[in-house]
Amino acid sequence: MTDRFEEKTVSSTSIYEGKIIDVKVDTVQLPDGNQSKREIVTHPGAVAILAITDENKLVMVEQYRKPLEKSLIEIPAGKLEKGETPEGTAIRELEEETGYTTDHIKLINSFYTSPGFADEIVYIYLADNLQRLEQTVEGDEDEFVTMKEVTIEEAEELEKNRRIHDAKTSYALMYAKQYLSEY
Amino acid sequence: MTDRFEEKTVSSTSIYEGKIIDVKVDTVQLPDGNQSKREIVTHPGAVAILAITDENKLVMVEQYRKPLEKSLIEIPAGKLEKGETPEGTAIRELEEETGYTTDHIKLINSFYTSPGFADEIVYIYLADNLQRLEQTVEGDEDEFVTMKEVTIEEAEELEKNRRIHDAKTSYALMYAKQYLSEY
Repeated sequence: MTDRFEEKTVSSTSIYEGKIIDVKVDTVQLPDGNQSKREIVTHPGAVAILAITDENKLVMVEQYRKPLEKSLIEIPAGKLEKGETPEGTAIRELEEETGYTTDHIKLINSFYTSPGFADEIVYIYLADNLQRLEQTVEGDEDEFVTMKEVTIEEAEELEKNRRIHDAKTSYALMYAKQYLSEY
Repeated sequence: MTDRFEEKTVSSTSIYEGKIIDVKVDTVQLPDGNQSKREIVTHPGAVAILAITDENKLVMVEQYRKPLEKSLIEIPAGKLEKGETPEGTAIRELEEETGYTTDHIKLINSFYTSPGFADEIVYIYLADNLQRLEQTVEGDEDEFVTMKEVTIEEAEELEKNRRIHDAKTSYALMYAKQYLSEY
């Protein structure tokens, strides 16, 4: 892979070190020799789970999203914690957010969410053979989510109404539509 | 729409005001009465264009992405500028990044890229009936991109090799695969 457009770091200034994100501004040297600034958010990465019940329903969670000042309906998701594999995170988040667990989970894709300003990557898993946990698992104490099970048609209606309105869930929904007919 | 999980802002601290992003930390009151912090990146929003040539090729651009320290191959995209409509931005970015223009463009979806920590929204357009511009249009002076035209099969191969590896492009590619057969 040629990176003839590589932007070499001339200097890097840490702006903020937070609980979830860090922010820095890099001064870079451009391919034409000029300098520019790059504002960069670093993030630990995340997983998201397209979980399908035995009745072919999609498991979703509703959650308030402070940056948007509204709640969205999304597939279950969460940040990678230190020492966890993405698959381990996926099963933990599924358990915490939905009360389901599974032994049948596979990675379907991964992608950077906003490569222009952030390094966040999301791993998208497909999970089925869902089993209800007998005991609920406590999630983050500052996270309030409600679980919903919806058909693909209901999910498409939620997307039309912009109650579903984020990249990972729109991607997962199109994946479900495309592949679950063969399922 | 009920937002019974609304997180009321107790206080808000500006951390950074940049060229592309701003960063703030809000102290919020949770539904259970406790307080927590929310780290929030604000962004003007962006458009991305799934542009299809008369030969049914997808128009892509290769660009170095500093947050990832590597280049990716993506559909053309760019930030909303003040006073622009998303469709106006889409046509401008298509012209600047690819040398094509069009009078045939439609919105296919929009989504928040990282609703947990950012308010960035991306509007995804489908464009065809592409016409080559006689004169190239200058883009941002600190942006270096190379245009590529690929078949859907080539794009899928690039995705397997993680040269295509961002949310909007993976979404657009699945859309192209699903809908262009009926096209």
